[in-house]
Amino acid sequence: MNLIKQLNWRYATKQFDNTKKLSNEQLNMILEATNLSASSFGLQPYHILVIENSELREKLKAAAWGQSQLTDASHVIIFAAKTNLSDTDIDNFIELVSSVRGIQVEALSDYSSMMKGSLAKQSDEQKLVWAGKQAYIALGQLLTSCAINNIDACPMEGFDHDEFDKILGLKEKNLASMVMATVGYRSENDKYQHLPKVRKPLDEMVIKY
Amino acid sequence: MNLIKQLNWRYATKQFDNTKKLSNEQLNMILEATNLSASSFGLQPYHILVIENSELREKLKAAAWGQSQLTDASHVIIFAAKTNLSDTDIDNFIELVSSVRGIQVEALSDYSSMMKGSLAKQSDEQKLVWAGKQAYIALGQLLTSCAINNIDACPMEGFDHDEFDKILGLKEKNLASMVMATVGYRSENDKYQHLPKVRKPLDEMVIKY
Repeated sequence: MNLIKQLNWRYATKQFDNTKKLSNEQLNMILEATNLSASSFGLQPYHILVIENSELREKLKAAAWGQSQLTDASHVIIFAAKTNLSDTDIDNFIELVSSVRGIQVEALSDYSSMMKGSLAKQSDEQKLVWAGKQAYIALGQLLTSCAINNIDACPMEGFDHDEFDKILGLKEKNLASMVMATVGYRSENDKYQHLPKVRKPLDEMVIKY
Repeated sequence: MNLIKQLNWRYATKQFDNTKKLSNEQLNMILEATNLSASSFGLQPYHILVIENSELREKLKAAAWGQSQLTDASHVIIFAAKTNLSDTDIDNFIELVSSVRGIQVEALSDYSSMMKGSLAKQSDEQKLVWAGKQAYIALGQLLTSCAINNIDACPMEGFDHDEFDKILGLKEKNLASMVMATVGYRSENDKYQHLPKVRKPLDEMVIKY
């Protein structure tokens, strides 16, 4: 596997082959890879929504300016950040750390206080932006993981977020849609796959100190 | 290369071996991989700062609560978002697309207008948040790229951003530090490498529709 070659193979797929689906193994692999993403404190302050239901996908497409990926891709994967991050999330996380690592909850109290202090300093809006950023790390890991496994993907920010939240009942779950990726296999007819990739030269992007 | 195995091998490295450096080839490879990250419209609204200068790294460490990764890692990579995104960035991007793909600038005018319209709708603060999110996609791609190449990394949000911006003279460059990753090789003495990874179970993280 040549990483650079695979990342050059990747492109924001505009037209998916709607006859090709990811196998359960492939889907699980990319979801597991995504779940292994880094997040601030390890809190994972978001959920990963996987949409297969075709009726829902038609509705989402209408709320995403009719972009065909919503219905033609194998799966739609949406990152939804928690809107009500609170001390309860920290307590649950500490319980998880305690159980996975076999450490007493009491021994983690400094760690817990530090995280609670960090949350307390932020407004609700700041917390949501922060949670959203963690989801973007996971999006990056998802896109890379797809690319090195020859799975096509299209990251998409352009959709009516409020409408998505309504269609998926996210408000009731204290979640807000942040960003998504449609995944599957490119159509032979997608002309974008043949266009040279546009990136700023590395020596323009990188500033060395 | 087993992706899941490599992502489980990865951890937020607390203690780097300060005698081990990435080769130029390795550094270039992870920077090139990072530069191939997806970004909204392909605009890449950030720069990638690579810090080797040890005097600067001491100063950055002091502005990051003395975290040893700043001076012990092989390299410090900081993502700095553009603070003055404007129509000029769109025009420059269109020039780049035109040159790479051999398309007349005039034929890209609808695309240009669409992107300018998208920028115009956002406040300066919203644009900075949006640019920052694109940098987080690149951070995700960087972390994955390091992991599959057995390069250690520690993503870090916890630092005095204003102080970093001063130390690196970012304001004058119309940039603002967003997030960083220290990269290199783990120390044998870093006890965190032996702790089981803490992640929410996949069936709790994923919501299926």
